[in-house]
Amino acid sequence: MSEQDQTAKPWGGRFSEATDAFVERFTASIGFDWRLYHHDINGSIAHATMLESVGVLSAEEKAQIITGLEEIRADIEAGNFQWSVSLEDVHMNIEAALTEKIGITGKKLHTGRSRNDQVATDIRLYLRDEIDTIASELKRLQSGILDIAEREADTIMPGFTHLQTAQPVTFGHHLLAWFEMLTRDAGRLADCRARLNQSPLGAAALAGTTYPINRALSAELLGFDKPTNNSLDSVSDRDFAIEFCAFASILLTHLSRASEELVLWTSAQFDFIDLPDRFCTGSSIMPQKKNPDVPELVRGKTGRVNGHLISLLTLMKSQPLAYNKDNQEDKEPLFDAVDTVKDCLRAFADMIPALTARKDNMYEAARRGFSTATDLADYLVRKGMPFRDAHEVVGKSVAYGIETGKDLSEMSLEELQQFSDTIAADVFEVLTLEGSVAARNHTGGTAPKQVKAAVSAARKQLN
Amino acid sequence: MSEQDQTAKPWGGRFSEATDAFVERFTASIGFDWRLYHHDINGSIAHATMLESVGVLSAEEKAQIITGLEEIRADIEAGNFQWSVSLEDVHMNIEAALTEKIGITGKKLHTGRSRNDQVATDIRLYLRDEIDTIASELKRLQSGILDIAEREADTIMPGFTHLQTAQPVTFGHHLLAWFEMLTRDAGRLADCRARLNQSPLGAAALAGTTYPINRALSAELLGFDKPTNNSLDSVSDRDFAIEFCAFASILLTHLSRASEELVLWTSAQFDFIDLPDRFCTGSSIMPQKKNPDVPELVRGKTGRVNGHLISLLTLMKSQPLAYNKDNQEDKEPLFDAVDTVKDCLRAFADMIPALTARKDNMYEAARRGFSTATDLADYLVRKGMPFRDAHEVVGKSVAYGIETGKDLSEMSLEELQQFSDTIAADVFEVLTLEGSVAARNHTGGTAPKQVKAAVSAARKQLN
Amino acid sequence: MSEQDQTAKPWGGRFSEATDAFVERFTASIGFDWRLYHHDINGSIAHATMLESVGVLSAEEKAQIITGLEEIRADIEAGNFQWSVSLEDVHMNIEAALTEKIGITGKKLHTGRSRNDQVATDIRLYLRDEIDTIASELKRLQSGILDIAEREADTIMPGFTHLQTAQPVTFGHHLLAWFEMLTRDAGRLADCRARLNQSPLGAAALAGTTYPINRALSAELLGFDKPTNNSLDSVSDRDFAIEFCAFASILLTHLSRASEELVLWTSAQFDFIDLPDRFCTGSSIMPQKKNPDVPELVRGKTGRVNGHLISLLTLMKSQPLAYNKDNQEDKEPLFDAVDTVKDCLRAFADMIPALTARKDNMYEAARRGFSTATDLADYLVRKGMPFRDAHEVVGKSVAYGIETGKDLSEMSLEELQQFSDTIAADVFEVLTLEGSVAARNHTGGTAPKQVKAAVSAARKQLN
Amino acid sequence: MSEQDQTAKPWGGRFSEATDAFVERFTASIGFDWRLYHHDINGSIAHATMLESVGVLSAEEKAQIITGLEEIRADIEAGNFQWSVSLEDVHMNIEAALTEKIGITGKKLHTGRSRNDQVATDIRLYLRDEIDTIASELKRLQSGILDIAEREADTIMPGFTHLQTAQPVTFGHHLLAWFEMLTRDAGRLADCRARLNQSPLGAAALAGTTYPINRALSAELLGFDKPTNNSLDSVSDRDFAIEFCAFASILLTHLSRASEELVLWTSAQFDFIDLPDRFCTGSSIMPQKKNPDVPELVRGKTGRVNGHLISLLTLMKSQPLAYNKDNQEDKEPLFDAVDTVKDCLRAFADMIPALTARKDNMYEAARRGFSTATDLADYLVRKGMPFRDAHEVVGKSVAYGIETGKDLSEMSLEELQQFSDTIAADVFEVLTLEGSVAARNHTGGTAPKQVKAAVSAARKQLN
Repeated sequence: MSEQDQTAKPWGGRFSEATDAFVERFTASIGFDWRLYHHDINGSIAHATMLESVGVLSAEEKAQIITGLEEIRADIEAGNFQWSVSLEDVHMNIEAALTEKIGITGKKLHTGRSRNDQVATDIRLYLRDEIDTIASELKRLQSGILDIAEREADTIMPGFTHLQTAQPVTFGHHLLAWFEMLTRDAGRLADCRARLNQSPLGAAALAGTTYPINRALSAELLGFDKPTNNSLDSVSDRDFAIEFCAFASILLTHLSRASEELVLWTSAQFDFIDLPDRFCTGSSIMPQKKNPDVPELVRGKTGRVNGHLISLLTLMKSQPLAYNKDNQEDKEPLFDAVDTVKDCLRAFADMIPALTARKDNMYEAARRGFSTATDLADYLVRKGMPFRDAHEVVGKSVAYGIETGKDLSEMSLEELQQFSDTIAADVFEVLTLEGSVAARNHTGGTAPKQVKAAVSAARKQLN
Repeated sequence: MSEQDQTAKPWGGRFSEATDAFVERFTASIGFDWRLYHHDINGSIAHATMLESVGVLSAEEKAQIITGLEEIRADIEAGNFQWSVSLEDVHMNIEAALTEKIGITGKKLHTGRSRNDQVATDIRLYLRDEIDTIASELKRLQSGILDIAEREADTIMPGFTHLQTAQPVTFGHHLLAWFEMLTRDAGRLADCRARLNQSPLGAAALAGTTYPINRALSAELLGFDKPTNNSLDSVSDRDFAIEFCAFASILLTHLSRASEELVLWTSAQFDFIDLPDRFCTGSSIMPQKKNPDVPELVRGKTGRVNGHLISLLTLMKSQPLAYNKDNQEDKEPLFDAVDTVKDCLRAFADMIPALTARKDNMYEAARRGFSTATDLADYLVRKGMPFRDAHEVVGKSVAYGIETGKDLSEMSLEELQQFSDTIAADVFEVLTLEGSVAARNHTGGTAPKQVKAAVSAARKQLN
Repeated sequence: MSEQDQTAKPWGGRFSEATDAFVERFTASIGFDWRLYHHDINGSIAHATMLESVGVLSAEEKAQIITGLEEIRADIEAGNFQWSVSLEDVHMNIEAALTEKIGITGKKLHTGRSRNDQVATDIRLYLRDEIDTIASELKRLQSGILDIAEREADTIMPGFTHLQTAQPVTFGHHLLAWFEMLTRDAGRLADCRARLNQSPLGAAALAGTTYPINRALSAELLGFDKPTNNSLDSVSDRDFAIEFCAFASILLTHLSRASEELVLWTSAQFDFIDLPDRFCTGSSIMPQKKNPDVPELVRGKTGRVNGHLISLLTLMKSQPLAYNKDNQEDKEPLFDAVDTVKDCLRAFADMIPALTARKDNMYEAARRGFSTATDLADYLVRKGMPFRDAHEVVGKSVAYGIETGKDLSEMSLEELQQFSDTIAADVFEVLTLEGSVAARNHTGGTAPKQVKAAVSAARKQLN
Repeated sequence: MSEQDQTAKPWGGRFSEATDAFVERFTASIGFDWRLYHHDINGSIAHATMLESVGVLSAEEKAQIITGLEEIRADIEAGNFQWSVSLEDVHMNIEAALTEKIGITGKKLHTGRSRNDQVATDIRLYLRDEIDTIASELKRLQSGILDIAEREADTIMPGFTHLQTAQPVTFGHHLLAWFEMLTRDAGRLADCRARLNQSPLGAAALAGTTYPINRALSAELLGFDKPTNNSLDSVSDRDFAIEFCAFASILLTHLSRASEELVLWTSAQFDFIDLPDRFCTGSSIMPQKKNPDVPELVRGKTGRVNGHLISLLTLMKSQPLAYNKDNQEDKEPLFDAVDTVKDCLRAFADMIPALTARKDNMYEAARRGFSTATDLADYLVRKGMPFRDAHEVVGKSVAYGIETGKDLSEMSLEELQQFSDTIAADVFEVLTLEGSVAARNHTGGTAPKQVKAAVSAARKQLN
């Protein structure tokens, strides 16, 4: 970035002293807001088109402006644009370049708007595009989960509560729990998009403008649903950024939970799955290591987005209306939250379908740990015993099993009958893992039949 | 709360050692989850009704259970219920009381469910009710804002950016900015409600149950839209609490901004409004003080809800499925966020319609501070000068005004013409405050006509 | 709490309208700040003593006040004190009771102070006492860790990075890592205490007082190191509360890490330790479960304190000096952070010394997983091979081991020599777990000798 | 950054599949950790020196390594170094360059260490240097505050509570409140530095190393106080980063409070101070604006550091020992927190001494608003009236003053005596602003004499 002559400042008229060089760098946003150039240019083209339609610009002026802006876009994308810190931000950099290209007409573009509504428009356009990309990656991940959930609909693993073996579930059923979390995330994302898709353009500095602008037209040209209702709110509102970060924090929290499980499952102690080498790295000192770096990193990135959410909430707290310079701090957290979400979803969408289940290890883990204890209790209840009493009988059977090193299905009928004479030979049917999962055969239950039906319904919903 | 015999524990069978007394208190949730009693009983009644419909309970058993539960509800509400810490939580306290009342049948209620799906159901029912109350308070506040905005549609005040006088706006217009913020909050609240309104009942511990339950029926009885899709997710999901807290944080951020303005406006320096004495308190040492306690306190409570949001996000980060004891920590932040939101909305809904504008002070503040400088620039542009050049002319006029202590409207034509001979006698029309606000006459603009139209449209939308 | 006549307000003179009943409840702090009564009374006694020493109170007045305050303390502790919401806070409740007891002299106590410096004094006194309790619990926990670390100084377990088996370590060494974390916590706590231990008493409302007070005397009477330096800062500063919460968040983060490990180690997959039953609970539906509730709950409580930290930081952000009503919101987060820290430390200090290691399982887990791979690399380096080349040789040996199902120590010399002919028969000495840990024999290393020395040094430091 | 051949990976031996290109970019840290190059090289030089001293490297090898590293440092600083993403991080980039420069000896540098202890060392060295810079900027700011506080020791302004005029204070006294906040910040920073200044080098991957290393020597060479006590803790500890961010959050909270006041004071409504133009910017649309951008931006940056603090706390929550890939996420928040703190302190240290007080406006604001009401109450108390009764008398006088538009000092003796006949002619002495501030003449009070003494004591403490 180069430093330009101070007199180039768009607001220099009133000032008698040059901006301190450090202050100039400290207050400039061009170091990060150049990323908005594409949407800034789109916004300016829509604004120029509208100005022409209401007679503020001539057809020729409009055409010059649009041509100039498109050339600038091409320059930027070709790497031929020199950003200047002394021009503060993306808006002034582009406007200065436009004026250099097309002369005095360039100065007319800013008629009837202010940087306050301009930047509000730019960020919304930017975020809307990014939301669409994210929605698509989210769907790709969900679709990958459905594929593997279907493949593993019959694979039995221990279901955990408190990280203790609780009841057998199918691996497909477990994966569908992840799918459900992501479905809610997709809903929140869509709600956020719907709420942000209104055009602040025309709010000008804070109060609207005295030019005969047509806000409905510029809104339409930019694909917004409608203009915003209040000019003060339009330039001071950053809800969309906070709401997006709240979405991102919940999404990453979900991914952190899945990551935690992937890390656990690839440990030697669990050894439930294999991750392909390309999602892992090794150690510079321990040659035997294969580390689940991708899930670990995604888990860690949860901190990042939670931090951005707090940044933005702290930023906006107690700000009086309308625009304050504080708001310049909205961009970096938002940009980084967007990038983080995209990267994490991409990593997961690539990785999940590539994992393989170590079915024998999963099965064996479920077989141990008294995972069918609840089935025994339910058996007793079906024979007429109150649930709380059945719970007690099974508790004592388990205590006996721990002491003797036997799973419930490994005890003899006599051993079982020590704890209740209600137990008969048919008990062994309910003590198998297959019997246990198949019996949970209702909406949302872990029975393979239900898992397959859930995959099928989810596929329809997704498409 | 009394301490009961350890043998009363619902899960005591397997254990050889009594729970440590401190550990019992440390791990018990009854100190706060008793608040769920009403929804816990409603959930149990729906569960019993469903169990009877599928033949697990007899009609008589169902009737006994319902009668017993209603008696317990009446006891609790009459203050005649003895909560016990050794029974851990609201669920076990009520179930124990039921069994004491109706005998062995009470023990059958827990058939086909677990505390994991039970508590998930309770919290959703609780939160849904509270959301409805909050939505109604929010609407009351919005309605109050509309009344005062309409009343003050013509009241001129300075609009601020960077807390510097920027352009004149109307007080009604400013208040409508608050209205817009709250409209988005109401949207987020409704979205949160829609997403949470699914029944986890029947997910049991984590995998579903082997009883022939009818989840659609219990969902319907409880007013849920449908049963949840996945049992593991059902018992581990706390998205609704996080999403509610995200709503609450954004809402309180909005209220903190309005509060900041109320505090500013009641300062001797601004003196724009009067708050009725009943929303203020005095000082124990400075007899002249009238402190805007209510807005200050609301502003401070923003910290509280931001904190609860972070609590819940931290809580859920990296938790493997399905239920972990950590989740017990979800309730206190949620309860307090709900209470805080209700109180702050009530305070605002009572207070806002009662504030009075000090119109003269507002007008005088707008008159000073060169608030019509932009109008002068626009005037020059309409006369054919490029905006950036007009900006410079006005900048110099303002510098002259600061030096000479004159507002733009107080300068003579000759003085103004020093800076540009484009300025003619008609300039004084645009330099009045009334002219300035009336000229911003487009959707979202500050013109009194637009403000009245916006109030009218908002009233329709609200009802 | 009872509601008193409005005329009882300490600041009623200026007001023409009664406080709204809801507003009264909303703005009152007595619901939580009654907890400060003990320190409020101590502060008042010191203040009265100082006032007498400078001649503002007579000896008799001082004596009456002190007697009255001690009676009130006794009443409160006996449960015979009626707190009133309309008296707003602990200060006014106690002062009103004093005046009721001793008449007009009670009104003189508030001479030369304000509630602003009074509450600042109270919280510091309260927090200082709680810090001392916490320091003592922290030390008890550290001492318990040292005992078990010494006992398990020779117990071999796998050391993990990325939750993958990395190198063998001793269990004692692992536990000492926890000790080190807590040592830093204790340091932060002591620093916080040192910084808070200054007396704000005498700052009055914000500017000091016109009475001839002796701040050094009241500071000394209350055990403060000195009076604070600036009256405005004294009434607006809440750094001590934030700094305490930052300490608490880091401490709980440490406990969350230890808790995560305890949960992992009690899982069927790891099965490295046993927690006594009294720190666990069972399941209402799965009779076989023994859930590590205490570590899970502590892990969850990390969210709570992180939330309080953010509450306080948000609260103080952008507050102009000096005291604002917002600050009333400082107490609940601080009180809850204090309670949480005390409970979690107590739970850990009781639980840690009671855990037992399943040494065979630890040893077996370390034996598998190529945990001595680094030792092989180091062996090669000692024979003259550059480290990076040695790393490659070992990498290939491990790949072979995975393929053939053999640990490094289970391969024959010939098999090992496939990958490098530098390997000789003496290699097997370094491939045993005992050899591996013993060889890391330097400050901070895992060798049993080092662990014992570290325990011994730590014991000295602790006492 | 260029992409290198996959076979260059330091841990490639075990892997059969190339790293996915996206995964490589996703997991690489070189994009941000290149900033550690200087401290990484210093750490390596110390490590090599130590290795030579214990005989692991020859004198010649050591010399080659050091020469090579210094050449690399020079290359980096001259912009002649090509960082490679496929080499993942700063450590491997530098080591690969070293091996390219000096051949096989370069590979020996990594003997007896791991990237886990290497990066822990680097960050501590980096942060220690930055802390020293920050401490110096903080001192410069404090010194600037003292200068202006001394200059304005007699300047009277209104002191505020609840943003309502409370009592007159001096501007110098107000500025000293900022000084006190910063003194505590400096203390926290020093405590953080003391705690981090221990050397993790030699902890290797997690368990120490089998080489005969001398940790005390490398610690000494790097200016650390001592080696850390436990190898597992050494590679997993990130307390120093969290503690620094906690310091930064509290500091920025303080700066946000001062910023809020600067913004208020430069508003037309307060108009208490002037900020030089170079710390302000203008508006692209409103030519008259002079916006206090620097304080606004600093206020906004509070969000940023609060966010980083939460990022790191979330990151570390629940991580099992020892090193996990999650920890790679520690750097960006820390780097940005450091940069933000340095920039904000620099901005303040430049700006504060350059502000000028509008003394007349301050005085006039204090004169209005009944700011000497407390003085009247104190006067009555000195005449024998109980404080609470005096409070009531003054409350009624103020109510009369509001009604009649007169300040207390503007009422006649007869008017004042309406409310109490205790009031005599000498009352007018205490009702002047000068009398009021001079009377608060005790440690920490606002009397000019006290302010000057406080400045003088603070100067001594600072130097």
